[in-house]
Amino acid sequence: MPIYTAPVTDMQFLLHDVLQVSAQDIPGYGDLDRDFTAAVLDEAGKVATEVLLPLNEVGDRQGCSLENGVVRTPEGFDAAFAAMKEGGWTAMDCPEEFGGQGLPYIMHTAAMEPFVSANMAFNMYQGLTHGAFNALLFHGSDAQKRTYLPRLASCDWTGTMNLTEPHCGTDLGLMRTRAEPQDDGSFKVTGQKIFISAGDHDLAENIIHLVLARIPGGPAGIKGVSLFVVPKFLVNDDGSLGDRNAVSVGKIEEKMGIHGNATCVMNYDGATGWLVGEEHKGMRAMFTMMNEARLGVGLQGYAQAEIAYQNAAAYARDRLQGRAVTGAQNPDGPADPIIVHPDVRRNLMDQKSFVEGARAFTFWGATLIDRAHKNSDADAEGLISLMTPVIKGFLTDKGFEYAAAAQQVFGGHGYIEEWGMSQYARDARITQIYEGANGIQALDLVGRKLAQDGGKHVMAFFEMVKSFIAEAKGDAEYEAQFLDPLKAASKDLQAAGMYFMAEGMKSPDNALSGSYDFMHMMGHVCLGLMWARMARAARAALDAGDGDDAFLRAKIATGRYYMARQLPATAMHLARIRTGAEPVMALDAANF
Amino acid sequence: MPIYTAPVTDMQFLLHDVLQVSAQDIPGYGDLDRDFTAAVLDEAGKVATEVLLPLNEVGDRQGCSLENGVVRTPEGFDAAFAAMKEGGWTAMDCPEEFGGQGLPYIMHTAAMEPFVSANMAFNMYQGLTHGAFNALLFHGSDAQKRTYLPRLASCDWTGTMNLTEPHCGTDLGLMRTRAEPQDDGSFKVTGQKIFISAGDHDLAENIIHLVLARIPGGPAGIKGVSLFVVPKFLVNDDGSLGDRNAVSVGKIEEKMGIHGNATCVMNYDGATGWLVGEEHKGMRAMFTMMNEARLGVGLQGYAQAEIAYQNAAAYARDRLQGRAVTGAQNPDGPADPIIVHPDVRRNLMDQKSFVEGARAFTFWGATLIDRAHKNSDADAEGLISLMTPVIKGFLTDKGFEYAAAAQQVFGGHGYIEEWGMSQYARDARITQIYEGANGIQALDLVGRKLAQDGGKHVMAFFEMVKSFIAEAKGDAEYEAQFLDPLKAASKDLQAAGMYFMAEGMKSPDNALSGSYDFMHMMGHVCLGLMWARMARAARAALDAGDGDDAFLRAKIATGRYYMARQLPATAMHLARIRTGAEPVMALDAANF
Repeated sequence: MPIYTAPVTDMQFLLHDVLQVSAQDIPGYGDLDRDFTAAVLDEAGKVATEVLLPLNEVGDRQGCSLENGVVRTPEGFDAAFAAMKEGGWTAMDCPEEFGGQGLPYIMHTAAMEPFVSANMAFNMYQGLTHGAFNALLFHGSDAQKRTYLPRLASCDWTGTMNLTEPHCGTDLGLMRTRAEPQDDGSFKVTGQKIFISAGDHDLAENIIHLVLARIPGGPAGIKGVSLFVVPKFLVNDDGSLGDRNAVSVGKIEEKMGIHGNATCVMNYDGATGWLVGEEHKGMRAMFTMMNEARLGVGLQGYAQAEIAYQNAAAYARDRLQGRAVTGAQNPDGPADPIIVHPDVRRNLMDQKSFVEGARAFTFWGATLIDRAHKNSDADAEGLISLMTPVIKGFLTDKGFEYAAAAQQVFGGHGYIEEWGMSQYARDARITQIYEGANGIQALDLVGRKLAQDGGKHVMAFFEMVKSFIAEAKGDAEYEAQFLDPLKAASKDLQAAGMYFMAEGMKSPDNALSGSYDFMHMMGHVCLGLMWARMARAARAALDAGDGDDAFLRAKIATGRYYMARQLPATAMHLARIRTGAEPVMALDAANF
Repeated sequence: MPIYTAPVTDMQFLLHDVLQVSAQDIPGYGDLDRDFTAAVLDEAGKVATEVLLPLNEVGDRQGCSLENGVVRTPEGFDAAFAAMKEGGWTAMDCPEEFGGQGLPYIMHTAAMEPFVSANMAFNMYQGLTHGAFNALLFHGSDAQKRTYLPRLASCDWTGTMNLTEPHCGTDLGLMRTRAEPQDDGSFKVTGQKIFISAGDHDLAENIIHLVLARIPGGPAGIKGVSLFVVPKFLVNDDGSLGDRNAVSVGKIEEKMGIHGNATCVMNYDGATGWLVGEEHKGMRAMFTMMNEARLGVGLQGYAQAEIAYQNAAAYARDRLQGRAVTGAQNPDGPADPIIVHPDVRRNLMDQKSFVEGARAFTFWGATLIDRAHKNSDADAEGLISLMTPVIKGFLTDKGFEYAAAAQQVFGGHGYIEEWGMSQYARDARITQIYEGANGIQALDLVGRKLAQDGGKHVMAFFEMVKSFIAEAKGDAEYEAQFLDPLKAASKDLQAAGMYFMAEGMKSPDNALSGSYDFMHMMGHVCLGLMWARMARAARAALDAGDGDDAFLRAKIATGRYYMARQLPATAMHLARIRTGAEPVMALDAANF
């Protein structure tokens, strides 16, 4: 039976010792004192462990089914969904005027992690709703906001995002779904959308589909795409539900994982919809919330690695097999626990040092989003735009890698479904694909974000690393363990940037052939920066005699591992980047 | 619908241009001329594509079921199994006196690859049988050989290997299954075995279980383990089937993949068995065939990456999405095929350069096994013993990694089961676990094989690389593209070996903390050596005007990619190794 305990101590350390949230000059942050955040996170952890975790394997095994046109979710999902609503977990950071709690995004982010670890497929029902809420909040008319937002905040209604069609995923300019204007100001939406998460289910009274479609006569390509709100049941003027709209589920996809979430083919057959925002500006509306949505997927990546790690560590302490090479550690037992073996530890330390660094990176990113939105801080906006593809791409690649690595600790028991380890890897796999496949994240980073605003944001990032190093200096041991590796990795990253500038001028392929490596390099540098910050905070707390010694020392040791064992990857990525496009593009397509 | 074409041109190039098999002084190799091997491999490819491939998804979807104590295999498996037997594919390298064809192991290896790519779960039924055949061939009595070998060669009967028990996998010394001697010379075997591949099924008349068990009164631990043959149906003196033996299926495991193969819990309740080989020497008997078995698993790893790659390359040529950044390549179509995008190519080149290098490494390993067995060549035996954990560990880690990378090319279509890409990754995942989990391979390599015979074999390997480089010199372009990177990577590997020697003396943990990195480093050096050899052979063939120019040039370009983009990983692994045990072992078990 899988275990899970929300890492509240780690989160509290991050929020208060590292990010010092309550001292930040962001509206709402002043209220985030230790007691408050602990109370929220403890409660979230409890819900995750007691309500969501027991349904994770149920959801995987039963999946969703289509019965007479309606999707049925796995047993127990309805009661759990009611508990999430009842507990007020569905709209923590939504404005109070629309039924939310008005808390900062960082609190939403921190509270979501346990839910995602414990049951990613289940949590997507409210996750998608949160995205739909924000799209309407930022782009809907006042009437649309009044109609939909309070019901989305409460999750009485849930939301979906409809972008992909059979022949177009990344390249949405090829979109065919059309929306014909009607005399009453509504539109008739017709077309097929695929891969629609939470496309239909039995957890909510109504489902509010946000649909990208083309208004006939508009510009070709991506510039002719508009956003529509298409409810499953039409909503009467008094807010009650009216007729069933002409949208139906074509089928539920069979997938590698997240079986508990219904991934639907949605057929729109002249369904009634209403324009959200301006005509032909649908992509802009969809992309407003992209930083948040992609950060949320990055979180899913490391959150799956977190629960997989917790189970692997527990198994490694428990499973008796072989003897420590340096002498028996459990001489009275038949064998030693496998955590004594160096390679098992190597594996666990890879996982642990990644997950804790990833959480820091994500939480920091969430504070940047708050700062960008609540303080209208353009520098924070620029920085989080730069970081977003890294958070999404790097954390999900590594999240999957380490979920699979955790599975390995179990040997054959990791491959059978009984122990739950296979599910974490299978569920994590989607995070590398949806919300922009990771190759697209790398393209966004190198093809777009690096040069954005004249390269201002990446220069600001390098400057931030440099000033952190200058400011954190003064202790030889800390410098050798943390600052020197960070400096070396950052230098590799800058060298890669220089290479792109010089060689990308000759051909953009020279830069784009190294985009994936650059995304990973930058991920390592960011996690290196996070670890240097965490270790510094832990040292300060130790010096002040403040906090749990064993926890703080473990934090520093875990950081040392990351710096020593993971940061050397930057040199490899730089070497790959420096080969340029030639070896990548040498073959004719026919020779593959 | 997944596609697959056996890579016969690649295989022929390897066998004849690179390994020059028919010129090797190994019994039976003289007959392996181009025409003969082409005929065999073409036919194997045809069976793979026409018979096995269509059943791969069927096997995954239906899985096996337990009905009234008997395992039912998926629809169509029985007819396909009959076709494999009919075609004589089940005992190519078995001695003719026992019904085999007496061909070298290299031919068996090459012919198996297409079967494994097309349907790994299906091919395991005969793969396990092959292992059981060999165990009895090398350790059985003459009577046992006469009774079992011809029927195993024909696959009228199939075989299994029973090692693991619920509380013991790697540490077989903890084994509890016991075998009580009977007056008639037989034993009564009692205990539970788990994870028994092909443990029961409906494809054969009888199933011959090879079971490790403990004879009461024998030495404790691994030195008290003996090997027994326990048939499902007892065999009468005339070879006909007698009574059902007291062995039964407890359940079929639900697994992440290889659903078409029944992984069984087997209960032995005083089942009648006979000792194979000597008392208490069961492990020796089991391990005789380990080099072959582990090479076979390494092959499974890259063979799954191969079929995944073939499908990804086809999809990348076909799927229209976006435009090449350097200008439209398909201006008359709605978009360009995604193979124009540098990051898609980067991904495909990673896969292609790995798979072709892995095949070369495996085929070379198979020739070493033939040389060891057929020429009783102790140096070849030493070298393949050294290489075996690398072939198994590195090729399966990378095989899984690239099967998942191929899935990524499909975007969301890779995550749904309909396209088949998920299955390759899920099936490949087991290869990292069974036949000794990859952490154990790394331990075997660093803890045992490096120092074997006074380090003679690893020194011989370094010498081989060095003399190859010396001998292959003479062309500046080739040297820069192939020999220089190989030399640098080999130097890293030697430096790691030196580190282990120096620091492992202080504590073995210093070596074992780097064992996994060493296994990967050595994998890269081996694949680098293979690519240098392949490129040299391709250049020679081009110079001679011999062979298909486009094929040969693609081979060289693919090799250049590996040398430029993959070999730099050795420096990262060296840096990780050089941190020693300290960061790995720093935490108390309680702090994980």
